[in-house]
Amino acid sequence: MNNFTFYSPTYFAFGKDTEKDVAKYVKRFGGSKVLIHYGGGSVKRSGLYDTVVSALGEANIPFVELGGVKPNPRSGLVYEGIELCRKEGVDFVLAIGGGSAIDSSKAIAAGVKYDGDFWDYYQGKPVEEALPIGTILTIAAAGSEGSPDSVITKEDGMLKRGASGEALRPAFSILNPAFTCSLPPYQSAAGATDIMIHVCERYFSNTTEVEVTDRLCEAILLTMIKETPRIIADPNNYDARANIMWAGMVAHNNICGVGREQDWSSHGIEHELSALYDVAHGAGLAVIAPAWMKYVMPKKMDKFLQFATRVWGCSMDYEHPEATALEGIRRFEAFLKSIGMPLTLGELGAKEEDIPKMANHMGIAKKGPIGGFVKLDVADVEAIYRLAL
Amino acid sequence: MNNFTFYSPTYFAFGKDTEKDVAKYVKRFGGSKVLIHYGGGSVKRSGLYDTVVSALGEANIPFVELGGVKPNPRSGLVYEGIELCRKEGVDFVLAIGGGSAIDSSKAIAAGVKYDGDFWDYYQGKPVEEALPIGTILTIAAAGSEGSPDSVITKEDGMLKRGASGEALRPAFSILNPAFTCSLPPYQSAAGATDIMIHVCERYFSNTTEVEVTDRLCEAILLTMIKETPRIIADPNNYDARANIMWAGMVAHNNICGVGREQDWSSHGIEHELSALYDVAHGAGLAVIAPAWMKYVMPKKMDKFLQFATRVWGCSMDYEHPEATALEGIRRFEAFLKSIGMPLTLGELGAKEEDIPKMANHMGIAKKGPIGGFVKLDVADVEAIYRLAL
Repeated sequence: MNNFTFYSPTYFAFGKDTEKDVAKYVKRFGGSKVLIHYGGGSVKRSGLYDTVVSALGEANIPFVELGGVKPNPRSGLVYEGIELCRKEGVDFVLAIGGGSAIDSSKAIAAGVKYDGDFWDYYQGKPVEEALPIGTILTIAAAGSEGSPDSVITKEDGMLKRGASGEALRPAFSILNPAFTCSLPPYQSAAGATDIMIHVCERYFSNTTEVEVTDRLCEAILLTMIKETPRIIADPNNYDARANIMWAGMVAHNNICGVGREQDWSSHGIEHELSALYDVAHGAGLAVIAPAWMKYVMPKKMDKFLQFATRVWGCSMDYEHPEATALEGIRRFEAFLKSIGMPLTLGELGAKEEDIPKMANHMGIAKKGPIGGFVKLDVADVEAIYRLAL
Repeated sequence: MNNFTFYSPTYFAFGKDTEKDVAKYVKRFGGSKVLIHYGGGSVKRSGLYDTVVSALGEANIPFVELGGVKPNPRSGLVYEGIELCRKEGVDFVLAIGGGSAIDSSKAIAAGVKYDGDFWDYYQGKPVEEALPIGTILTIAAAGSEGSPDSVITKEDGMLKRGASGEALRPAFSILNPAFTCSLPPYQSAAGATDIMIHVCERYFSNTTEVEVTDRLCEAILLTMIKETPRIIADPNNYDARANIMWAGMVAHNNICGVGREQDWSSHGIEHELSALYDVAHGAGLAVIAPAWMKYVMPKKMDKFLQFATRVWGCSMDYEHPEATALEGIRRFEAFLKSIGMPLTLGELGAKEEDIPKMANHMGIAKKGPIGGFVKLDVADVEAIYRLAL
């Protein structure tokens, strides 16, 4: 196990009606004037927007608002939010929505406190200061409600890049599973896939002697395998939604990933896909992650044997271990298909001729190979895209 | 799943040499004058005490110290510590040691900020304010390094009682597994048992639809089953020590216990034992917990079937489920024995004639039955003690 630090100071309020306490939490964590940041109409249709506005009003907490966050959130709205916060003297950013609203809020919160261009943070500068952030989560997927990360797409060049820093951990996050019940099956399945791949990117590691985090990773995967089909069959299954919502936080606040190398190749390869075609990130991962697994498995079979036997219940074939490792990946693919996820680039509308463009767009030629578990150069990434055809 | 809040803002620094950064963390979390609180000579023999004193000295952070914390820490030293902190203007309490040093530090930190008798907190008053606390952990067991809890024994009447409150969560905890390598096998096994029972007290719950926390509980138990025999065989196995140390934190910061009823009966029943005989808490739990399991299992067999099959690898006997449930408990007992733990009151030196005294000392006649999973009155508790004879 490697040395590590772990700091997850977010206050989580989980369960039915917890959004009604939003003003209490804004005050507790230092907010005196709030930016409410959200996407489209769903937070209004659900009544959540009205609940928040009433709660802030009753508590005499002034606010301004900025809607219009899109999936794969864009830098243009971030610049707008930063300017609005400065003009209005906002000292707290409240995200309502899924990972896109939260990531956009994090970018605004960091940008307000920074003299330069906020995009510097998305080019590798660590985020050391930001306005405090609160979230009311409505989609279980990105894990941004508990993470120190944010992903934004810059329109100029369609660069999808991440920023990170302790200051981006939300001060509080309100998680009411009931708000996730209105999410259609396809988006629910994409969210579940994202959660599972957040775990896999930590699980497939070269660091040995990490039984505790391996077991925690497997715990989240096993939970998702049980609960996801239940929300596809019945979107209003509160308990299944609740298990998935908490699993989504645990999958990405890094309690499952400390003390080990991580390998975020599938996310990196998928980001090019969703930037170019604007597909749902989780659906992109359903296509890319199994292809990545098949490509790297022969080089690192042991971990795939553990994955196959502990997570997918495969019997170990000691005479033909590779068959067991492949069977684990096959069962993962069958699971993704069963919840309605695509498995090929074609299903996403992606074209074979774009593969070189996507592979080259990652900047490997300039920055060097990606990946920790298995290092990947441009040709490897191209081969992974082709395995997903 | 039940509604819950979860707040674990402790900053964890984990791994080799992390204790050298102690002054940086004291400053970061607001300490300007420190009480160093510890037990006996082991922190001096290991060099840890000197490292801390040097680090604080180099950073010009003044400190006073109070040693002498004993296992099952006593109220007398807490009163002394409170008086010392007030006299010296201490604003930060730094615990060096295991759960006893940390729990005693928490009691002092809360007592300093309270006008009344600190023991009020151990009679049910929630702790709302305390000096900030830092810990340097040297024993993997109690989980106090990440928990909001403290257990103290009052000499007058030998009452062993717990206090709780968010203010008792340490501001930072430094976990260097190397310091746990000097712990003898018996104490190491007792610590491992304590960690496992912290999980079990959460696992055996009447709350249904908690797959995510069930799986997290099982992850910690499976980790302990793998790693504990390795530290018994080789106390200097750093990696096994590291897995156990992190598992000990995860087992008790409540990430495995949120959203569900918990049942702390085994701890309550054991507290009477260790208060009367001053036995190692974990060894007492090794005797009490399996007896509790055997006593309650017929009333709640389903959860014991899950425990047997998922944790202990039992094959489910669908024709004779009770045999499977019992086999799970039997394997747990065999595991405890294999790591050198006692399984009977006799091995602890406890006497049959003290059973009524211990059962009555819990205050059940006055406060009502204990337990959530299965409610236990005085006769039930007596029966559990007798099952452990």
